[in-house]
Amino acid sequence: MPAVPKHREAMIESAVRLFRRQGYAATGLAEILSTSGAPKGSLYHYFPGGKAAIGAEAVRRAGERVTATLTELAASSSGAGELIARYLELLAGWMRRSGFRDGCPITTTLLETAPQDEAIRKAGADAFAAWAAVVEAAAWAQGVPLERATPLARFAVAAVEGALIQCRVAGDETPLAEAAAQLADLFAAAGA
Amino acid sequence: MPAVPKHREAMIESAVRLFRRQGYAATGLAEILSTSGAPKGSLYHYFPGGKAAIGAEAVRRAGERVTATLTELAASSSGAGELIARYLELLAGWMRRSGFRDGCPITTTLLETAPQDEAIRKAGADAFAAWAAVVEAAAWAQGVPLERATPLARFAVAAVEGALIQCRVAGDETPLAEAAAQLADLFAAAGA
Repeated sequence: MPAVPKHREAMIESAVRLFRRQGYAATGLAEILSTSGAPKGSLYHYFPGGKAAIGAEAVRRAGERVTATLTELAASSSGAGELIARYLELLAGWMRRSGFRDGCPITTTLLETAPQDEAIRKAGADAFAAWAAVVEAAAWAQGVPLERATPLARFAVAAVEGALIQCRVAGDETPLAEAAAQLADLFAAAGA
Repeated sequence: MPAVPKHREAMIESAVRLFRRQGYAATGLAEILSTSGAPKGSLYHYFPGGKAAIGAEAVRRAGERVTATLTELAASSSGAGELIARYLELLAGWMRRSGFRDGCPITTTLLETAPQDEAIRKAGADAFAAWAAVVEAAAWAQGVPLERATPLARFAVAAVEGALIQCRVAGDETPLAEAAAQLADLFAAAGA
């Protein structure tokens, strides 16, 4: 039976949390190690590529978590508008409870490192594409033709990202509710 | 005649450029000083508040520049959809020419520092509000009732921010063109 790489998991979890709250550059390896409880030697054992490797893995992991949440919500939503509205309600709750400190788990890191760091950039592009694919499938299921669903889904992901930034900067969740309403209108019109 | 604070200006310009490309935390005061050509002693003379004070001023300055560009474009646009499409064409050109390194001049800094740093957060909130006000006026001028123009304009600013992130991460300007098309549809429908 292979050893469970629990320290590796703990380091990724710490990195996701810290990068989201304070950004990539402001987060040192020592802070990731100390908040993860992993022993010092384990960092370069699991991440020979150092901080950039942790950054790429943290973006990948956080992206997959969002994809999983979206997929779960999509299974019980009647279309893309409802899916996005329910996801944005979740986000609004998280933002409120964190005092508007927890934004998108990948945007800050991406803006700090893309396009210079290719592994992180690629992890971010994959995440955005996976999120859009879930929204696209939900739009198609509600009757939006694929040639409209594809760009609309990508636009919806962008608009949600932007609304989350506004929410964080305003310290107010109104931008999320506004984005949900506008996107629901767009998907409804495209499916009519 | 008061002395022209040319070193102060040069430092702000350097900060705007560096924060946009590499982020706030990754940019040291020494780098801002050296790229600005200002003498070492001038930093704390003009910015007794240190880096956070430069951060707030850089966000304010960059925000005002975007507002000025939007206002200029609005004067010769027939509505909010055209205004946004023309602005996004400008952005696409800048992104392309910078190898997708120059994103929004304020988002990265805001995500790294909000809501912890109140002066930077406030400068960002003011910038977003000023941009939305220009878009709102353009929408109103094209016949969108104010109760629709206000939330739509805020949403448009969010969507443009999100599209710019996607553009940077994808290394491709398609997200900007898609956002322009979707937003033009929304404003046209609201004004009909």
